[in-house]
Amino acid sequence: MNTIRIALIGYGNVGQAFARMLRRRDEYIRETFDTEAAITAICTRRLGGVTDPAGIDTEHLTDDRFDRSLDALTIIRGGEYDVMVELTPINIKTGQPATDHVRTALSLKKHVITANKGPVAWAYRELRDLAREQGVCFCHEATVMDGVPVYNLAKETLMGCRITEIQGILNATTNFILTKMEQGMSFDDAVAEGRRQGFVEADPSMDIDGWDAAAKLTALMNVLMDVHITPMDIDRTGISEITKADLDEAAARGKRIKLLCHGRMEDSRPVGTVRPTLVDADHIAAIMDTTASYVTVTTDLMGGVTVIEEPFEPEIDHTAYGVLSDLLRILTEIRTPSPRR
Amino acid sequence: MNTIRIALIGYGNVGQAFARMLRRRDEYIRETFDTEAAITAICTRRLGGVTDPAGIDTEHLTDDRFDRSLDALTIIRGGEYDVMVELTPINIKTGQPATDHVRTALSLKKHVITANKGPVAWAYRELRDLAREQGVCFCHEATVMDGVPVYNLAKETLMGCRITEIQGILNATTNFILTKMEQGMSFDDAVAEGRRQGFVEADPSMDIDGWDAAAKLTALMNVLMDVHITPMDIDRTGISEITKADLDEAAARGKRIKLLCHGRMEDSRPVGTVRPTLVDADHIAAIMDTTASYVTVTTDLMGGVTVIEEPFEPEIDHTAYGVLSDLLRILTEIRTPSPRR
Repeated sequence: MNTIRIALIGYGNVGQAFARMLRRRDEYIRETFDTEAAITAICTRRLGGVTDPAGIDTEHLTDDRFDRSLDALTIIRGGEYDVMVELTPINIKTGQPATDHVRTALSLKKHVITANKGPVAWAYRELRDLAREQGVCFCHEATVMDGVPVYNLAKETLMGCRITEIQGILNATTNFILTKMEQGMSFDDAVAEGRRQGFVEADPSMDIDGWDAAAKLTALMNVLMDVHITPMDIDRTGISEITKADLDEAAARGKRIKLLCHGRMEDSRPVGTVRPTLVDADHIAAIMDTTASYVTVTTDLMGGVTVIEEPFEPEIDHTAYGVLSDLLRILTEIRTPSPRR
Repeated sequence: MNTIRIALIGYGNVGQAFARMLRRRDEYIRETFDTEAAITAICTRRLGGVTDPAGIDTEHLTDDRFDRSLDALTIIRGGEYDVMVELTPINIKTGQPATDHVRTALSLKKHVITANKGPVAWAYRELRDLAREQGVCFCHEATVMDGVPVYNLAKETLMGCRITEIQGILNATTNFILTKMEQGMSFDDAVAEGRRQGFVEADPSMDIDGWDAAAKLTALMNVLMDVHITPMDIDRTGISEITKADLDEAAARGKRIKLLCHGRMEDSRPVGTVRPTLVDADHIAAIMDTTASYVTVTTDLMGGVTVIEEPFEPEIDHTAYGVLSDLLRILTEIRTPSPRR
């Protein structure tokens, strides 16, 4: 039996849900890959770090096990692990400190999984090339649409196709707010309701102003269209100017207003926009209620292919599954290195 | 430079479109896989077969090159090829002769790609196990939703998830007829229109009576839910009883009637139904117009994930792309055999 050792940099909701999911699939991983997955390091900003080369018992982990002197970079540089999982809070306008975490781990020939979209939106090409040079995996499936396999759909299953255009609803918070406002709730009450349900941040401005959507669109364009842009290059309008009157007027015409993301090439230059858009009732965007999201990729050989993520369900952690699916991909790669990586 | 030799058993629209697409991606295949793809055998029921171990020039192939004495099984048994592509007309009620073609090729340690759903609906488990024993690939992506990677979405990108339910619109012809009837066209005119556009068969009864949808649902359930059923096990109702009055009555209530496929387990037994179903306007099925189709898989770890295929476009051959994507998958496998196969 082999062992794969995991360092979790960040241990909030997603990290804890991932640890639970890993326990739930422990037997599956042993049977499928003849490998035991062990979390050997955990780091949080508030508590510091805890390490145990024999594997941390995450089911019974208490705050007093953490050592305040162990910070993220110390663990990434010196820890005993094979896979670094980047789960720290994102700074959308810089991509840091996540990008430094990822770069450092890849430099040390560690596999990397990031659920933080910063590194993919800000430094994808550099990190992808670094991973290739070092012969390790750089996985980021959870950064857009959680565990819905949007990157891998395109890379693994639409092989040989050229992706010419990307369209979608990528931000759950704004779609939730627009849906609730259509139903008569005020903007502030919709934000409060989203917070109660646990998916709206303490400061939702990054969502409302379209930054989160812009970062996700950037990540998708960098990976799927092989361009090299940052969130600053996106023509971005948020939903703060949208009023109940706008939504009612749209509804009276059988339409809805949605925060649409759109990426394409114009005169060989990448063009990305995030903006509130009037859509017809039979448009795919129009049936996305509350926290549902979708992406349509347009390809040369297969036309348009769409994937949809359903609204959040309390018992399912979609982001944690995205991290787990990346871990399973790494385990597959380790056994059968791909010439395409 | 390596060579991969391909035998096309059946050479109608899909086979010819595949040959064109292969020429279009010739350079991509050489560069990515250091391999030249050559079609070394072609067989049709009407003309017989043509073989050329050096590669057939499909761009300039004329009828007089065919030898009437060469039939499918003769070519499959004696031909010089590495991959057999099964493209013969389907007999939905038996799965033959395609199943025999696939079995014979696998027995000879040839990789198989089938766009014919018969073998997957009638003998999936046997053929999958035979392929594993022989150490070759059995690919069938084009059998459901053409080149939309519905099998591989689940197998490659939703790894570790258990699929508990499958729902979708799987037959383009009936969805086209229902859409046109809603718009005021008669049933017969809708069939005629679909024939003019090239996707409705001379005898559309297999579509209209739900057999095609039942065979596709069976194929999906066999592969994704690891059950062992045939199209005969599906509780099947076609659309022949649906009238304009039914569609108008649904529309008056803001609903539509769609031929829905639904597979799930009940008391540990697989249950599959194909039947005209009333759906709400905001149901994903309700936005599928003309030849669009979709599948939603429900999983334990990721909830529901949906993929959509857009309506046919004349310039895109979605089925041929499905065959090409399987070929690229085989080329990937040959270079890096997967432990999961």
